[in-house]
Amino acid sequence: MPAPLSNAKPFLAHPFDDDKLREECGVFGVTGTADAANFVALGLHALQHRGQEAGGIVTHSMETGFHSARRFGYVRDTFTSPSLMEKLPGTVAIGHVRYSTAGSKGQTEIRDVQPFFGEFSMGGAAIAHNGNITNVDALRRELIDRGSIFQSSSDSECIIHLMARSLQRDIPERMKDALRRVEGAFSVVAMTRTKLIGVRDPLGVRPLVLGRVGESWVLSSETCALDIIGAEFIREIEPGEMVVISPEKGVVSHRPFEARKSRFCIFEHVYFSRPDSILGGRSVYETRRQIGVELARENPVDADIVCPVPDSGTPAAIGFSQESGIPYAMGIIRNQYMGRTFIEPTEQIRNMGVRLKLNVNRALIAGKRVILVDDSVVRGTTSRKIKEMILDAGASEVHFRIASPPTAWPCFYGVDTPQREKLLAATMSEDEMREHLAVDSLKFISLDGLYRAVGEAEGRDANCPRYCDACFSGEYPVEPADMLERGFKLKTAAE
Amino acid sequence: MPAPLSNAKPFLAHPFDDDKLREECGVFGVTGTADAANFVALGLHALQHRGQEAGGIVTHSMETGFHSARRFGYVRDTFTSPSLMEKLPGTVAIGHVRYSTAGSKGQTEIRDVQPFFGEFSMGGAAIAHNGNITNVDALRRELIDRGSIFQSSSDSECIIHLMARSLQRDIPERMKDALRRVEGAFSVVAMTRTKLIGVRDPLGVRPLVLGRVGESWVLSSETCALDIIGAEFIREIEPGEMVVISPEKGVVSHRPFEARKSRFCIFEHVYFSRPDSILGGRSVYETRRQIGVELARENPVDADIVCPVPDSGTPAAIGFSQESGIPYAMGIIRNQYMGRTFIEPTEQIRNMGVRLKLNVNRALIAGKRVILVDDSVVRGTTSRKIKEMILDAGASEVHFRIASPPTAWPCFYGVDTPQREKLLAATMSEDEMREHLAVDSLKFISLDGLYRAVGEAEGRDANCPRYCDACFSGEYPVEPADMLERGFKLKTAAE
Amino acid sequence: MPAPLSNAKPFLAHPFDDDKLREECGVFGVTGTADAANFVALGLHALQHRGQEAGGIVTHSMETGFHSARRFGYVRDTFTSPSLMEKLPGTVAIGHVRYSTAGSKGQTEIRDVQPFFGEFSMGGAAIAHNGNITNVDALRRELIDRGSIFQSSSDSECIIHLMARSLQRDIPERMKDALRRVEGAFSVVAMTRTKLIGVRDPLGVRPLVLGRVGESWVLSSETCALDIIGAEFIREIEPGEMVVISPEKGVVSHRPFEARKSRFCIFEHVYFSRPDSILGGRSVYETRRQIGVELARENPVDADIVCPVPDSGTPAAIGFSQESGIPYAMGIIRNQYMGRTFIEPTEQIRNMGVRLKLNVNRALIAGKRVILVDDSVVRGTTSRKIKEMILDAGASEVHFRIASPPTAWPCFYGVDTPQREKLLAATMSEDEMREHLAVDSLKFISLDGLYRAVGEAEGRDANCPRYCDACFSGEYPVEPADMLERGFKLKTAAE
Amino acid sequence: MPAPLSNAKPFLAHPFDDDKLREECGVFGVTGTADAANFVALGLHALQHRGQEAGGIVTHSMETGFHSARRFGYVRDTFTSPSLMEKLPGTVAIGHVRYSTAGSKGQTEIRDVQPFFGEFSMGGAAIAHNGNITNVDALRRELIDRGSIFQSSSDSECIIHLMARSLQRDIPERMKDALRRVEGAFSVVAMTRTKLIGVRDPLGVRPLVLGRVGESWVLSSETCALDIIGAEFIREIEPGEMVVISPEKGVVSHRPFEARKSRFCIFEHVYFSRPDSILGGRSVYETRRQIGVELARENPVDADIVCPVPDSGTPAAIGFSQESGIPYAMGIIRNQYMGRTFIEPTEQIRNMGVRLKLNVNRALIAGKRVILVDDSVVRGTTSRKIKEMILDAGASEVHFRIASPPTAWPCFYGVDTPQREKLLAATMSEDEMREHLAVDSLKFISLDGLYRAVGEAEGRDANCPRYCDACFSGEYPVEPADMLERGFKLKTAAE
Repeated sequence: MPAPLSNAKPFLAHPFDDDKLREECGVFGVTGTADAANFVALGLHALQHRGQEAGGIVTHSMETGFHSARRFGYVRDTFTSPSLMEKLPGTVAIGHVRYSTAGSKGQTEIRDVQPFFGEFSMGGAAIAHNGNITNVDALRRELIDRGSIFQSSSDSECIIHLMARSLQRDIPERMKDALRRVEGAFSVVAMTRTKLIGVRDPLGVRPLVLGRVGESWVLSSETCALDIIGAEFIREIEPGEMVVISPEKGVVSHRPFEARKSRFCIFEHVYFSRPDSILGGRSVYETRRQIGVELARENPVDADIVCPVPDSGTPAAIGFSQESGIPYAMGIIRNQYMGRTFIEPTEQIRNMGVRLKLNVNRALIAGKRVILVDDSVVRGTTSRKIKEMILDAGASEVHFRIASPPTAWPCFYGVDTPQREKLLAATMSEDEMREHLAVDSLKFISLDGLYRAVGEAEGRDANCPRYCDACFSGEYPVEPADMLERGFKLKTAAE
Repeated sequence: MPAPLSNAKPFLAHPFDDDKLREECGVFGVTGTADAANFVALGLHALQHRGQEAGGIVTHSMETGFHSARRFGYVRDTFTSPSLMEKLPGTVAIGHVRYSTAGSKGQTEIRDVQPFFGEFSMGGAAIAHNGNITNVDALRRELIDRGSIFQSSSDSECIIHLMARSLQRDIPERMKDALRRVEGAFSVVAMTRTKLIGVRDPLGVRPLVLGRVGESWVLSSETCALDIIGAEFIREIEPGEMVVISPEKGVVSHRPFEARKSRFCIFEHVYFSRPDSILGGRSVYETRRQIGVELARENPVDADIVCPVPDSGTPAAIGFSQESGIPYAMGIIRNQYMGRTFIEPTEQIRNMGVRLKLNVNRALIAGKRVILVDDSVVRGTTSRKIKEMILDAGASEVHFRIASPPTAWPCFYGVDTPQREKLLAATMSEDEMREHLAVDSLKFISLDGLYRAVGEAEGRDANCPRYCDACFSGEYPVEPADMLERGFKLKTAAE
Repeated sequence: MPAPLSNAKPFLAHPFDDDKLREECGVFGVTGTADAANFVALGLHALQHRGQEAGGIVTHSMETGFHSARRFGYVRDTFTSPSLMEKLPGTVAIGHVRYSTAGSKGQTEIRDVQPFFGEFSMGGAAIAHNGNITNVDALRRELIDRGSIFQSSSDSECIIHLMARSLQRDIPERMKDALRRVEGAFSVVAMTRTKLIGVRDPLGVRPLVLGRVGESWVLSSETCALDIIGAEFIREIEPGEMVVISPEKGVVSHRPFEARKSRFCIFEHVYFSRPDSILGGRSVYETRRQIGVELARENPVDADIVCPVPDSGTPAAIGFSQESGIPYAMGIIRNQYMGRTFIEPTEQIRNMGVRLKLNVNRALIAGKRVILVDDSVVRGTTSRKIKEMILDAGASEVHFRIASPPTAWPCFYGVDTPQREKLLAATMSEDEMREHLAVDSLKFISLDGLYRAVGEAEGRDANCPRYCDACFSGEYPVEPADMLERGFKLKTAAE
Repeated sequence: MPAPLSNAKPFLAHPFDDDKLREECGVFGVTGTADAANFVALGLHALQHRGQEAGGIVTHSMETGFHSARRFGYVRDTFTSPSLMEKLPGTVAIGHVRYSTAGSKGQTEIRDVQPFFGEFSMGGAAIAHNGNITNVDALRRELIDRGSIFQSSSDSECIIHLMARSLQRDIPERMKDALRRVEGAFSVVAMTRTKLIGVRDPLGVRPLVLGRVGESWVLSSETCALDIIGAEFIREIEPGEMVVISPEKGVVSHRPFEARKSRFCIFEHVYFSRPDSILGGRSVYETRRQIGVELARENPVDADIVCPVPDSGTPAAIGFSQESGIPYAMGIIRNQYMGRTFIEPTEQIRNMGVRLKLNVNRALIAGKRVILVDDSVVRGTTSRKIKEMILDAGASEVHFRIASPPTAWPCFYGVDTPQREKLLAATMSEDEMREHLAVDSLKFISLDGLYRAVGEAEGRDANCPRYCDACFSGEYPVEPADMLERGFKLKTAAE
């Protein structure tokens, strides 16, 4: 593995968000505007929830060639300085935001930040990748044996090296060659001097949408990033589709892969995507509210108020309240000035922990039977703390209702999940979890209930599920080759 | 006026918040803990909504004397570095957060950041002030004539100079001397080497509460800052009361001023205080929800959904929905990564303006009759933009309901308000405002309705109102001496 | 004493310079140019050797009033940014550079950085002070008793407070009042909205010169700062003189103090002033070369080469070589990239110490009898290290020749000296010092020889010495009142 | 060419140094000490004069693998922070300092900063290169055609790609393969997990020396960097030699190239190397003094004083004075606080230009006939300014004596020189230059005189010159292939 560079890392993620699954990336691209870099900066700002650690932008100008900048930190704090943005001229641009990945893989370095750039004999190309390549170990070994020099520890870099070694004469064809060799999940936005390119893997695990504003074409992970620049949502890039966009020919669709049934990530509906995005024709907010409705139907309970765990539990809590008739109330208040870190210097203060981010509305909670609606339970550490806060404030009962099924399996398709043994649901039954959290009741939405909420009236078709739900079901639509080599055990018939 | 120092200013406030009244300060103090500076940092973090521009902390250690640090920026970004905090040892500490004040007064400089410190023959003292002194011009002239040298442009500095010139032999007595000379609103937290002191002006315009955690006593602008450190809320400091707190004698109460009827700021209930604080024995969240209930009773309208203008309109929108039976929905989504600035480099992008911070949930809004609940209308600029976003998203009707009466008069008691002529309600009737905003209806809660929501069943007693409501009524409980000298006109009998 | 602020300190001075006496300040002022702040920045850059730790500039513009900026670090790194300099408009400006003072007094804070500013009823004034006030403790107590609030720990601040309390109606008169109350050494540059003022104490201990460029008048500690802006050297401000300079009246001379014999600091000739300055009509470089000539006459020795200890020993080494006929050679090379700090992380490296800054020219030194010429011996720590370097490189003999008499007494007139017991010459005879340093010979120039080199053909007149030479003679021309109170013992008849 | 990254550039070089030839790099490596990174940092600090813009260090630790850091700025300011240095553990380390190269090549980016790292199937390797590859254009095209992805615009990167494609099984053999393909000048320091490697090109154009301290072996561009860590100078790496150093086998010498006559860069003696280094067994200081002696013999002139242009002209001026008997004097004083930039904000100040860095000792110069000794004349811009300063100060005559022959040809072997047409001596005869500079006389040392000063008693052997003197003679020992392709014209028979 290449040498870790020692650049300062500006922050760790929220202590609190350690107990969430985390989408690892957002991608965005635009062509046909003199303001390309600013459009990408705005798009990345709208996609910041998909990756908070770092971002990068590559542009191309016919006068001055390719330009690139990569920065740690929020887009709002980095890609907003006029002195930086004026160094990114051009009419085509792509960008990427990424999360930090956990300590096991070591620290992220600036050279790990995408987009990756390569210069080929027919010109340069840059790529930005959302997803994860599941056979990267083997590919990397093979490329190094033949003389490629890797500059990062990112799985995505092998795409550009595969492109460099393709014998094809144009870049989109080289990209097809490269992507046919990789396995896993990928929504890729790429660019050449004149073209903007978007690709989704055959299963379409990660989202990618096409938009239009004025004369410009836009590619984005989510529709909320079209809204921020006033772009019209045209359509989703289809699973297995490659679009090559140029001013002369517009959007040209290719089908480089063999056809397969799509398996979109169901967790995008539950948590990853922004509530104001539209996924598969459905409002994410409305889907989440509907999950709350299903949850209230499946697991009713007598109580005085329904409180969301802010902010991700809010839409489901609204749905739960509307379906159950139990009043909705903001029993937990989030500190809006909570930053990415708040160093707690003494033991005394460290023990105060969660209050830095959340506070209970004591006057509201005291003496009440409280239903808490959260989006998911990962390690369970947060749920315990929140329960304690609520009881400290004088609640008479605490009932957890969770807007997703038990998360029992790690994701290998571009989501940062703990190792399996760290997932509460991998080692405990629902009842054991309730006891572990010491709450009056704990109920998860069923997998069928979740499918109903996302529009499958019949629930999940076990023979041919419409979504990737491996984190709940343990059924992996793409074999995680590298992980199996490292010793990961798939679900056995007995499980 | 003293020379403005040229320290870099890190930011301007939210473009969006320019259309809000802004509380100018929060204060916090603690005594009796070896962790005093960390407690103050946590308390200021919880009070950050009361002042986002800068903060300061003064501590005293018996071994090393007084220590002080003042910083621009959020507490989470400044008073969290171990290297800074270890320079603030001591068992007594006070702190202050402050907002920027508008351009008219020029830029804030680091030397304008409180607490202010003075060394007297009997030892040092530091003070932090929330409020505004209405006769500071005269006091300042008088003090300069006698040889005082002012180091800041802050009105609060005159308190420490008045103390320096008092003939009293101890610091609390000097503070009484000083505060008897100042007019206006003041909640002051002060400290000597051994004592923590809290004072509220006779009208009690600004809040100040007393708490206890372990062996330590705490003073804070709001109860939410007691919660963050796990302190118990003991009581409010009373209007006109001074408490002198020391480890030996505990809390000793003084009454340095002549008794008057109290006039607490009613806008603290509407907007300034955090929803999880308790004011006058009432949950701020619950009061705001109740404002929504009153608003729905006073101004019902037939519609499909009730949407808050996030985040300050949320509790009133919940109350409005509950009273009216019209479903509550998050039609406007706030970008949680919105920072303090987002420089918009081109005209094209500048025109996108408000989308950086807010986005509409199009799928939810399209074709609906929408009630928008906001906390107040100041200049009206924001309301216009939000209305346009909602209509762009396809709403069939837009009805504004405002959780406070028309804001027609500036505040001179520690709130940053535009000049009177900039206030929409100062120049237009409700009907003209509706036309100006071009919405289907626009209704404000009545002043009586607001008094009912804060617990006055009979509404406002015009002869002896329980609150300061000058921003709505134009009735100023303390004559704004400096402002009158500068030409401000009080309400005439005719108005 | 006021609370130390916790601003970060960018550096300590050279580890190497710890073994030098250090001038504490340089002052500069200009009037009559639209470029006033830039002129002052250039002047301070040329005076940087008089104070490396921090600098400040105050300007006044008729349109925008007073402006001020204070910064830690070198002038070249601070007062050169266009964004800072454009915040310092005006046609009158003064500035100040200062050294750090040793740990005993605690860290310097930004508020200790001059110029100091005060606003009086007749307008504002700023002052910058080179020197030291020897009765500041008593003055400070008195001022605090009467209600003055000190913002710094600087002795110079009492001047502005004394001015604030004067009953005089104009600022120059108030300044006379104030300076008649202070004892010690002071060369002060001050400004009002319209006037530039310069004053030297009656003994004229510190330098101050008047220059002219175009229509502008300039005041500066040294002539080298006139050269940098192309100003013509007009004359020295005389001991006990105050000049008040305005565009209308030009330079008006006042004599506010009772006449005394002047006692200029002789160490300015030896070390403090820059070699390209002119002091008392004499080239500093030439005086130092002449010291080398006197030294060679007084203390000849047979040797192969004469090497300066760079850089301050260079002119005397040249003179020594010319007088003795022994060839001059650069046997010690200074690393020109040596910064203000070089953190040495391990014991192993810490022991390498002095090589970071200096290296010996081994090929030149090996087998040679070497005369090392240095400007002074303070603690003797540096001399030891240099001797070891030279011997390591194979020198056969090492002879030290010192261009000043033994430094046996601390300075209380604006120079940072160690406590008396730390001065090598306070506790050892010349012979003991030679043994302590373990060199083949060690000789200092005599006090008479030094007086001859600065132009007193007869040497020192013991009854009425022309210079302040207290650091050599222990004869203090102004009684150090504060120091006596703190226990310092003057020279006894026996010594 | 790859996209320029937009990282901020901290500085430009001295305005003054724009008129010098500039060595582009220094290299340093160590093996066999737990303090490897600190040793390299110290070594690079001592080599800072060879490259001021940026530096990098790579280390290898058996426990934690390879580590790397690259920084803009001086070593003293970057590789001295404990928090950075502790991220560079290991027992083998190499480092590099580099100059900025002129605008024509675009800005240097952090990814252009060496050492370069590559991971091969048999493990990682890092290289640091001093020199310049003259056939890099062709090599780069070839490598890109075969699928290599370049991350920098540096010529040195092709070495690591050539190594990646070698079929050899160990890294030293791969390095031989790679270096046999490159043409030009190279002194390379490289490392694997266990070995330290040093190579000089067959002509030995750039220096590289071997040292030893305790159990550690050291490679360095110059001996002055051995001194700083107390290492003993063992020998020079010979032209065409590769040394492979490991703890087990010590220093093993290889001869990978065909034998050629060596051609060491003569300008290293004149200017590039530090005066306390030893080159080819000769003290650089002594060589430069001897150049002064030769210069005085070749071009005597009657005058009053000999002044060096500081600091590079000093040794030759001393020699000139000693040979001629005319007294040596510091007529020009360098401001030791001059930084890398001093922004001059107004036209008025910009015209003061050179005084920021240098000042004339007026009292010394007035009325004198002055000989100025400088190391070289490149564009001539500096010489003009200095002459003006000297005349302004009242000199009666100005005679320039230059310690190198006229610089008439650019260097293509690792030195940053202006294009040929910018070199004063490329377009003017000595007489025209004298007229252009408007001085009383201008004389350069002859090429033969220079050879004599470096020890060739017979002067230059035109048939087989011992040094590379292309910058003076136009005779390039390695054909500059890339430059010829870009249109550079070699010296014709007629010239």
